[in-house]
Formats: sequence, structure tokens, C-alpha cells
Amino acid sequence: MFLLDRWYVAAWPEEVTQQPLARTFCDEPVVLFRGTSGSVTALEDRCCHRNLPLSQGKVDGDCLACGYHGMVYDARGICVRIPGQSMIPKNACVRSYPVQERDGLVWIWLGDAGRAGQSQPASYPFHADPRWAHRTSRYLIAGHHELINDNLIDLSHVGYVHGKTIGGTPAAHSEAQLEVQRSADGVVVRRWMPDTLPPPTYQRTYGFAGRIDRWMEIAFVPGLVQIYIGANDAGKGFDQDGRMDALGIRIFNGITPESAGSTHYFWSAAHNFKVDDAAITQAFFNEIAATFAEDKVVIEAQQERFDRFPNRANVALQSDAGGVHARRVIAEAIRRQESPVAA
Amino acid sequence: MFLLDRWYVAAWPEEVTQQPLARTFCDEPVVLFRGTSGSVTALEDRCCHRNLPLSQGKVDGDCLACGYHGMVYDARGICVRIPGQSMIPKNACVRSYPVQERDGLVWIWLGDAGRAGQSQPASYPFHADPRWAHRTSRYLIAGHHELINDNLIDLSHVGYVHGKTIGGTPAAHSEAQLEVQRSADGVVVRRWMPDTLPPPTYQRTYGFAGRIDRWMEIAFVPGLVQIYIGANDAGKGFDQDGRMDALGIRIFNGITPESAGSTHYFWSAAHNFKVDDAAITQAFFNEIAATFAEDKVVIEAQQERFDRFPNRANVALQSDAGGVHARRVIAEAIRRQESPVAA
Amino acid sequence: MFLLDRWYVAAWPEEVTQQPLARTFCDEPVVLFRGTSGSVTALEDRCCHRNLPLSQGKVDGDCLACGYHGMVYDARGICVRIPGQSMIPKNACVRSYPVQERDGLVWIWLGDAGRAGQSQPASYPFHADPRWAHRTSRYLIAGHHELINDNLIDLSHVGYVHGKTIGGTPAAHSEAQLEVQRSADGVVVRRWMPDTLPPPTYQRTYGFAGRIDRWMEIAFVPGLVQIYIGANDAGKGFDQDGRMDALGIRIFNGITPESAGSTHYFWSAAHNFKVDDAAITQAFFNEIAATFAEDKVVIEAQQERFDRFPNRANVALQSDAGGVHARRVIAEAIRRQESPVAA
Repeated sequence: MFLLDRWYVAAWPEEVTQQPLARTFCDEPVVLFRGTSGSVTALEDRCCHRNLPLSQGKVDGDCLACGYHGMVYDARGICVRIPGQSMIPKNACVRSYPVQERDGLVWIWLGDAGRAGQSQPASYPFHADPRWAHRTSRYLIAGHHELINDNLIDLSHVGYVHGKTIGGTPAAHSEAQLEVQRSADGVVVRRWMPDTLPPPTYQRTYGFAGRIDRWMEIAFVPGLVQIYIGANDAGKGFDQDGRMDALGIRIFNGITPESAGSTHYFWSAAHNFKVDDAAITQAFFNEIAATFAEDKVVIEAQQERFDRFPNRANVALQSDAGGVHARRVIAEAIRRQESPVAA
Repeated sequence: MFLLDRWYVAAWPEEVTQQPLARTFCDEPVVLFRGTSGSVTALEDRCCHRNLPLSQGKVDGDCLACGYHGMVYDARGICVRIPGQSMIPKNACVRSYPVQERDGLVWIWLGDAGRAGQSQPASYPFHADPRWAHRTSRYLIAGHHELINDNLIDLSHVGYVHGKTIGGTPAAHSEAQLEVQRSADGVVVRRWMPDTLPPPTYQRTYGFAGRIDRWMEIAFVPGLVQIYIGANDAGKGFDQDGRMDALGIRIFNGITPESAGSTHYFWSAAHNFKVDDAAITQAFFNEIAATFAEDKVVIEAQQERFDRFPNRANVALQSDAGGVHARRVIAEAIRRQESPVAA
Repeated sequence: MFLLDRWYVAAWPEEVTQQPLARTFCDEPVVLFRGTSGSVTALEDRCCHRNLPLSQGKVDGDCLACGYHGMVYDARGICVRIPGQSMIPKNACVRSYPVQERDGLVWIWLGDAGRAGQSQPASYPFHADPRWAHRTSRYLIAGHHELINDNLIDLSHVGYVHGKTIGGTPAAHSEAQLEVQRSADGVVVRRWMPDTLPPPTYQRTYGFAGRIDRWMEIAFVPGLVQIYIGANDAGKGFDQDGRMDALGIRIFNGITPESAGSTHYFWSAAHNFKVDDAAITQAFFNEIAATFAEDKVVIEAQQERFDRFPNRANVALQSDAGGVHARRVIAEAIRRQESPVAA
């Protein structure tokens, strides 16, 4: 059971072209393509005639033609042409999914299309903000999406998993000041780590020499974790207004279930220093990519254990509070989706 | 449930040697081998002692010796020797399958051996006819055999799937004159495409320059689709008697289920022009091999979708008539097999 | 259902280091590690917090720290530290397995720890005996452990499977004098093959030129098959006392189930001739390794057939007597394990 009444990241804009793109979301096979007008369309990736994936077909204007017998579907998923046959059956159609392209992201609505207008994708202006330089990536992770949420919401793991990049000393993390703020739709975690050693990534890309004051802000809603972290020379404090003068890092984490055991993980890493130096942007991206590859190993190993031993007991720790709340938020949203209240 | 009371192609003759050959037909593991007398034998590929595949054994005269403890089986599947033991248990035997080698094909009967004499494999003289040059091949296709039947019976797909080889313009196919002739045991489809452009394969191998009159004849019975296609300069017509003076192509398609989701596809491609030019035969074969590789991609993608979404609706088109009849023919033959009428 | 109340080989000592080692025994995920004191510990390979395999963690003294959030487990499997949290929940622990390191082997007890003291691993002094030179290896075999027992207990197969190494002529084996001696806990099989041709391995490593008297002694208990084989010039007889003057070979076969369909196979091959010639030890090892690789192919092919055709009949031969008894011994030990008699 997935939360479908939600805008999820479907792709980076440059992934969607006139060459149809096959991708599965929440167990649904979807084909994404860009029509000649430039508009993005998402259809069920299965011709209603004989089940060939439409992603093996060809874009024809803003329509898509099946690669087997040439049936043409428009952006609504309605078959508008059958070669060699004048009559088009009424049930010759496939499902069409609402999509939106904004903030350098392609979003898809997998639930009831009639409810797509009830909410909007989160705003994320930083992909277009000249004060920030970023690069994007996508990992397919063989793990349940909530394992990724757990990982991002509880950053106490970075000292253990990411010692070579963004981690730093484990103690700095486990002794951090912590604030967990819950809301109906999500959770925000803030961590302050005063007077600590800069982790390797900060030294290599930003150039810290001495000790630093470091902070992290993690904002979760289903399908999306926004991370804003930063650091300043120790003693300069955590003043929110002064953030742009210090090291600032923004990580976008789009978390879209592929299936119960696998997740599309769309991420971008932006930095606010030396934004015109492409080599720095690349070097910084490489460090984050290595970091997330370490998380991927952890999450996939967890998933394998959960699959093999579905009934073994687990012990909750205090640091799980944020992740536990995130699970509750998703479960409640699924309940609302299953039993929508009359408006 | 497979149609077993049927002669199926098991192998090309040159595949069956004194090196035992393991092959699964209709979920049955079979070992094929050629005894020193030259005769072909097909046995259950599982030693009755401890289940080692007999295909890991060695041919011994016209018998087969298991590779584990040396038990020897004759062509009837009866164990005739147990090393180190004088008494041979009565139940020390494996199933033997009727086989026939004819027309450059090895055929096997997978049903009740007592009914094997009730029918004969189809005759196919063209592998030995000097007016035709051919080459043979075999694909293992990860798809249900009826998806292959569909593909071969409804050639309206060639304009979409095979544009680079035998296809030609899609419209020429969807506007073709069509005749579907059904019988109790199969279906014959005839297509005429007057005054059309020659597809790339015809240009490259036969050398057509101008427009052509083109025809196709597809004859299906369970396990076998014979295709006879040809073309002449436009205006010369479709005279059956004159066929041998124009471009003629014969495709043999032996379709033997391996399992519910995979099929042995034995095919040969013969042509009636420049039959003494080995380079032409090879070039022609390469074009057909590329064409069938395209079909393989389509069929395997369909199978994956049918497996993942077994309950989603499909829409039938007019061009499915031949394939629908082929399904009915197979279903009725399976019913007869399950409830044979007293003779 | 596995026989768990038994000491099984878990690893060769050199495999267990401060780099944790993941291994599954009888469907249980186990991490083995060597603490800084040198002691070997075996724990459930699954952090009780969020299921990360502890084998992805780090050894910390004689404890093991999880690689995700740093929880530290001692050799009893009890969590003794949770970073960032002072209170350790009572149920924060993982299972610990009794282990013993002796005779150049690491043994593990997978059953009820309270019964581990009731028996001891078999003694195997030959890994430390200067009159014997040996090398060790490990194969993971995709087959049920009883198929390996069968293979080792009934050596009549060596003439068919191992003709290129230790086999020799099939007839020599099937005509061997045979003695099968059963006990409550196992079976011992003795074979004598007087006046036979030396197999290739004996010729290449020992240098036999003429015919030989050859004998084999195979001692099975659950989890372990000890093989002692030898040969002398024909006519010199099988005198037990004189064995050390002739060719002697000892094969240790530790057979530890990984799952119902796969088995850890720990083996060593020792010889009593030219024990100071490392090249001979290596050459001899290579021959045995090739031999066991042949057995692996056989056993994995059997397993595949048993999996595919679980209900097809098998025929027992006289030579199965030892293997049949071994199955009975294991079945009875499992019954005792399930219904332990009050002491």
C-alpha cells in the first residue's frame, strides 16, 4: 500500500525527451516523454492491445505510437488512431498521470487524478538561484523508501557511515544538541554541533583549517527531505541571518517508491561558496555522491535482512523519534487516501 | 497445460551428436543423443537413481550411461546395466520419447507414446530442394509460444517493428488486401500488397529498383508456421505459377514450448534467387536474423508485462482474427488430448 | 529442519580476523570475528536496532560496533553502549553462538547453547601432525548437505566422475570388496581394491609405476566425513600397521548446511609422502580441488533436478546403503533435538 495522493519526483527534466523513458512508480509502469511541443506526458507503460510497453514506441507530435502495430495515444491516454482499422473501440485507452515541470524537477501524481489539484509540489527555488551551484543525480536503491527517510532524518549515523567524507568524529554527532519538531505533514530536525572538527569534505572543498560551529536542518514531508546544513568558524555562532556568509549546503532528496522493495532517489547537492568554480562544484558533488553510495549499501543491507527475517524483533532508540513520526505521517496520509472525507 | 499430442521440432539434426544434448520441452527435461548407429534417441533427462541429468553422461553404443554411477539406459529408457550390482530393479527406467528425423529436422512426440502414430510431422521438402538455398537458426525466446504465433500470423507489425529490414512503409501493410482462411487444425492468412516500395532487405539482396507487387502467405498449425512470401516488379501480378521466376522467400518457424514462459524457436530462411551464391544466402540470413531478433525483444517485453499484470484488460483489434483462431485451435486440441474419444 | 545440536565447522582459523566475516549457517545469519585478545566470537549478524548486518561494523576490543549508529555488542551479544543514549534497553542484544577453535578449525554450535557442553567436536590431529602435509579450501555448494554425504560415503562414483584424477578404471571400484559398518551416530565404509591400476593422481604425485593394492576408509558422522585412503605396490597388502610406509591420503570434509539448498564444504587434503616438498603438496591439492569441483557440478545438477521435480520417483541401489543410513542418523538426531529426554 503506497501513499499515492502526493506529488512525487518522477525525473530530472533532461531525462524526459522524445525518446520515451520507462520508469516504475509505486508498482505502476509509467512511460514519460516530451512531445514536440515540449510538454511532458506520463502514460501507463502498456499498450492496451497486446501489452507491449509503450516506452518501446515512438513520439508522434504530442502523442505516442506503440512500436508493435502503431496504435497512437494522445496525452490523455486515449487511442486516436489504429492503422488499418477505422473504428476505434471506446475502451482503447491507457491511464494518464498528471505531471508538472517546475523548479528543475518533473513531478507526477500517482493517485486519483481528480484529487491532483488539491495540493502542489513543494517549492524548491535553489536549482535556479544564482547564489547556489548544484549538480543532480539519481540512484535506484534496493530498499523500502522509509529506510531512506530514516537515514536522512536521523543524521547521527554520519559519524559511523561517512567518516571519510561528511562525517567527522562520531562523538560530535551523538553529543549534538537536537530539536525535533513535528507537524501533521512532516517533521523538522535541527542539530547544533558547536566547536567541532571539520569533516574531510568541508576541509577539502571549503578549506576550513580550525574548529567549526556546525548545524543541520532536516525537513521531511512524504516523498521529500530537504536538508540545509552549514558551518562557520568556531565561535561565530549559528546566526540564521549570517548563513550565506558561511559554508552552506543544500541537499534535495526526492524519494519516490518504485516498489515495496526499491526506491528512486533523486538528489541534488548545492553549495553557496565559489559558485562559479565548476571544479569545486564537481569535487563537492563527488564527495556527496560517495557519501550517498555508502548510505545505499547500508539501506540495501537492511532491506535484505528485513526481507529474510520479517518477524524478528527490533529495538527502538531515542534517536528514532523523527523517523517514527515520519512513518506515522505516511500511515495517516494513506488512511485519508483510502477513506477520503466528503468535502 | 500444453498440447502434447503433437510432433514438435526438437532440434536441428546437426545439434544431435554423441555429446548428449539437454533441452526442456513443455516443462519436461529431455536428453537427445545420437547413438553410434546414427539413430536419434530422446530420454527423460534425469537418472532414476539419484536425479543426475543423463545429459551429463556418455553415449555407449546406442545407449546412454549416467555420469554419476554408470547406470546404462537403452533407447527405450530401460536400464540394462548397473555397475557393481547384478539385479536390475524393474522400475529402473526413464521415459523415452518417440522421435523422427526427416526433412532436415528432428521431431519429438511429447504426449502419450501410444498416440504418436496417429499423426505425422508436417512435410517440409524445401530444406532439400536445389531450387532453394537456406540457413537455419534457433532462438530461445522468453515468451509464451502463443505470443510468437500472434506475431507470425499477423504481419501487420512488420512496418512498425522491422522498418530497417523486411518492413517497408507501415501504410503498405495496414492497407494490404487480406484473406483469413480457417480450418479445424489451423489458419492460413494471405496478404497482397500491389504497387508498393520494396523494403530494404529486398533491395539489398534481390536488387529491386522500382515498385513491386508483393504477397505473403502464412500457414499456421500448432507448433509450426510456414511463411511463403514473394514479390515481382509492379504490374507483373501475383500469378502463382510464375512465382519461381520472381523473388520467393520461405521461412520455416518451428515453435516448441520450453515452459509456460519460454519457447524454442527453430527457424530457417530460404530464398529462390542466386541460390549458388553463398554470400547472398548469408546476407539474406543476416537480415532475417536481425528481423527475428527485433521480434524477440517485442515478445519478451510483452511476456514481462503479462506476467506483472495478469489481470489488466486488453483490447482486441480486427487484425487479431488469425491469432485468436490459432488460440482456439490449440485449446480445442488440448481438450481432445485430455478427453480422447474412443476409436 | 536442521540438526542444530551439533558442532559444525564454521571457518578456517585464518578466515576469522578483526575484519568481521558474514556467513549463514542453517539459515541463521552469523558474524564471526576475532577480538583484539585473539578470541573468536560468533553473533547473530543483524543489529537489533535497525537490522544492519553487524558484519558491516567494526571490531572494538573483543566487542563489535554496528556500522550504522555505533551500538556496541560484547561477546555475549549484549549491547554495552549506545552512542548518544545513556539508558540501554534490556532487550538490546543479539544471539551469541558457542564457538571453539581447535585442530586448525573453528567450530560453532547452532542449537540451544545450554546443550553445547553435552558433546565435543571430533578430534582431528592431522592438521598439526608433522608426518602429514596439507592444504585447506572451502566450496559453497548449491546443494543439500545430504547430497554431499551421499557423494562421499559411496565412492563407487569416482570411476565415473573422476576418471582424470583420483578415479581410475570404473570396474576397479564397482568390483571392490566393501564393508559397511553402522553405528548410532554414523557409518564407516571400507573398500579394498587389490591389484588395480593406479589412478592418474597417484601416478603424478606419488610416482606409482606398476599395479597397486588400494584401500579406502570413509567415516561419517553428521557434519563431518573423514576419509583415509591409501595404496601400496600390488601384493604388499593392506596391513594397517604399514600404512605410513605406503601412499596415505587424509581428506577432512566439514559439511555445514548454509540453507536447505546450499552447503559450506570445508575440506583439507593431507598426504604422508614428500611432506617437505611444497610443490608436491600444491600439486596434490590441485588434483583434489579439481576432483571436488567435479563433485560440485554433479551435486548442483542433482539439486536442480530435485527442486524442479520434487515428486518424481527414485530407485535405490545396493550401494546406497551407507547414504541411507546417514540420512537415518540425521533424522533421528533431529527427533532427539526436538524432544530432548529429561536427563
